[in-house]
Amino acid sequence: MQKRTLKLKNVVVDGKIVDAFISNGTYARIAPNLADEAEETIDFAGGRALVPAFYNTHTHSAMTILRGYADDLALFDWLNNHIWPVEATLSYDDIYIGARLAMLEMLRSGIVCLNDSYWLPAATARAAAEMGLRGAVGLFRCGSADQTQAGYEAALAYESSLPSRVFYNIAPHSVYTLSPKQLEEIAEEARTTGRAIQVHASETADEVANCRKSYGMTPIQLLEKCGLLDERTVLAHCVHLTPEDIEILARTKAVIAHNPVSNAKLCSGMFDLAGTIAGGCRVTIGTDGCASNNCLSMFDEMKAAALTAKIRTQDPTAGPASLIYDLATRQGALAMGLDAGEIAPGKLADGILLDLSHPILSANYNLVSDLVYAADPSVVTDVLCDGAFVLRNGHVPGEAEILADARRVCARIKAHA
Amino acid sequence: MQKRTLKLKNVVVDGKIVDAFISNGTYARIAPNLADEAEETIDFAGGRALVPAFYNTHTHSAMTILRGYADDLALFDWLNNHIWPVEATLSYDDIYIGARLAMLEMLRSGIVCLNDSYWLPAATARAAAEMGLRGAVGLFRCGSADQTQAGYEAALAYESSLPSRVFYNIAPHSVYTLSPKQLEEIAEEARTTGRAIQVHASETADEVANCRKSYGMTPIQLLEKCGLLDERTVLAHCVHLTPEDIEILARTKAVIAHNPVSNAKLCSGMFDLAGTIAGGCRVTIGTDGCASNNCLSMFDEMKAAALTAKIRTQDPTAGPASLIYDLATRQGALAMGLDAGEIAPGKLADGILLDLSHPILSANYNLVSDLVYAADPSVVTDVLCDGAFVLRNGHVPGEAEILADARRVCARIKAHA
Repeated sequence: MQKRTLKLKNVVVDGKIVDAFISNGTYARIAPNLADEAEETIDFAGGRALVPAFYNTHTHSAMTILRGYADDLALFDWLNNHIWPVEATLSYDDIYIGARLAMLEMLRSGIVCLNDSYWLPAATARAAAEMGLRGAVGLFRCGSADQTQAGYEAALAYESSLPSRVFYNIAPHSVYTLSPKQLEEIAEEARTTGRAIQVHASETADEVANCRKSYGMTPIQLLEKCGLLDERTVLAHCVHLTPEDIEILARTKAVIAHNPVSNAKLCSGMFDLAGTIAGGCRVTIGTDGCASNNCLSMFDEMKAAALTAKIRTQDPTAGPASLIYDLATRQGALAMGLDAGEIAPGKLADGILLDLSHPILSANYNLVSDLVYAADPSVVTDVLCDGAFVLRNGHVPGEAEILADARRVCARIKAHA
Repeated sequence: MQKRTLKLKNVVVDGKIVDAFISNGTYARIAPNLADEAEETIDFAGGRALVPAFYNTHTHSAMTILRGYADDLALFDWLNNHIWPVEATLSYDDIYIGARLAMLEMLRSGIVCLNDSYWLPAATARAAAEMGLRGAVGLFRCGSADQTQAGYEAALAYESSLPSRVFYNIAPHSVYTLSPKQLEEIAEEARTTGRAIQVHASETADEVANCRKSYGMTPIQLLEKCGLLDERTVLAHCVHLTPEDIEILARTKAVIAHNPVSNAKLCSGMFDLAGTIAGGCRVTIGTDGCASNNCLSMFDEMKAAALTAKIRTQDPTAGPASLIYDLATRQGALAMGLDAGEIAPGKLADGILLDLSHPILSANYNLVSDLVYAADPSVVTDVLCDGAFVLRNGHVPGEAEILADARRVCARIKAHA
């Protein structure tokens, strides 16, 4: 439950012990020994660092109930023979339960915000609303399935029940599941409704080759032509970009959601982090879904982003920790339209409390390096979103029920596999 | 403290609830409802899986006190201007304290065995002996430093104090810090003392090129010629192997310690997992040291091994979870000369208890996939080594002192940086 005011006493921010006074979901003042009286004050006695939370700009939350269901397979075997058949059996409740399992895991690793694309978005939006996360749930669109239309209508009917921190955007799947005409209609819908767009783009070499063959242009060029690219658009993957694509993304300010683990596991290719940054693109980090990762930890994802940047360039100075950390925090928040991702007055009161007595953080030469290269979710003790605790002492309210529900759904899926 | 007999009641092994009866450091019987009376019996009520522990076949434990000290640098800048100068200031106590910090972290992630190469091996051996781990500490040899000779003599003087589960092997650094004559002397010493060998080999393209230039052969060829390769030899990295090198390693049964994170972070290159396995080589997994990783989690390392195998081959079926898990457990144990790495009667009683109520393990389609692709050390609640608990309910005896000591050493290093 969000308190109107909350004071975190004696937390470490940028190496100094300070108090953080939070008012109406925003950091109001951050300084030593604040006199402000708050509805609730917690004294952390210098044992916790308060750092920005993580913003996960591309995920499919509900797929967490498929973690480990099928791995180490070629992409189309994986999709056609494993993932799509089981997905066709998932109900609203299954998706709600899968999304709750995902959000439990995200909160444990300090992720407070998601950009989710999946069937039956109302189920995922409800989970986010109940569990205190923020961000966008995509009104999912692909070319053929009737299910997406029913899911769309159910989601719109549910929209008035959502808190302001959870909102819909429009999630056209890709240029290979939607026609240019459908993409143009979606662009028009985005303009008239004021919703942002999230879309998969240029994930595989085949996707780009097929798009060129069908339309004489790259997916990025086609998305621009259809009117889908602006500064609120998030494009997942972007593994195969031409120099012109990079120029388009930089010019339109559309945001890349880099998914390094998924790209590696599915052999989609190696994202050009150095080239897109040098070209002026906005880059953020997403976990993708659990079936292709297989976890939702921004720690894993940051390390993979740094290591794959080095592997791709064979330059050990590529993908430095400070850059990667900025992408996972501040740039992610900006991509989601949030004035957040920093612990500073005026910013939304999202944040992570880190256990400074944890073995991983004990050397303490460089906290950002430790978070990018060494940490795992066990360094996170508490998480704040929108000025409220969403993880407290390592626990999320109702987690036993979340896990029991998930085990039940997974046992059913396993029995029918 | 090791009990003579220990019974783990109602643990899940290979999907079934069983009891594991341990006698004198070995799994004696594993079956449901064992009648054996033990000195200590613990009932886990089906809530824990008992799985093999991890065997870390290449590390530099003490470097954990340098975690985050210098990252994202070119190799020789990193070594010459950062790592080597600070290493020159480290005392026996610093190395002992760094090794204890490392072993705390290893135990938390289920690693019970190490193969360590560093200055002043007595300090590291003492830490392993005290903290209950097993494995080899290398009598470190590089070409020039007097320090290695003093460390060598101190280590030999300490040898009679070690328990049988901790032993020395000989750790010549590499072909680029030792002459062929020195390598031959080391091979002779190994033969006369019965000690195994651990050595860095073919880590970088430059190392191979320089070796060819100096000696007209690859490092693997040179090591064979000098008599260092047999089935007890562990070679760290082996990133740059020729087909003939692979044939030599397969024929001599020398073991590769694959270090995927370190190879990626330092841009050493991409190890050929598929090619070495297909060529009949023995492959295991090591974390390398914390300055080039920057953590000691076999979970991180297994995921990196799987992902880099896929990246290198662009084949999503490469580096499957079942293979990677075998390398980190059974193959690692075999490499260290141990009849362990499996939960089975007659095997050494090493093992990990996993919290089956953990969110990461809740989908439960495939435990091995979950451990390789999704898990982090927080799934580990207890660790057994040699029939004794070395981690119990997430904690290691004396961990507060270990952390306080480490913070003190790191603060001193930071003040002088």
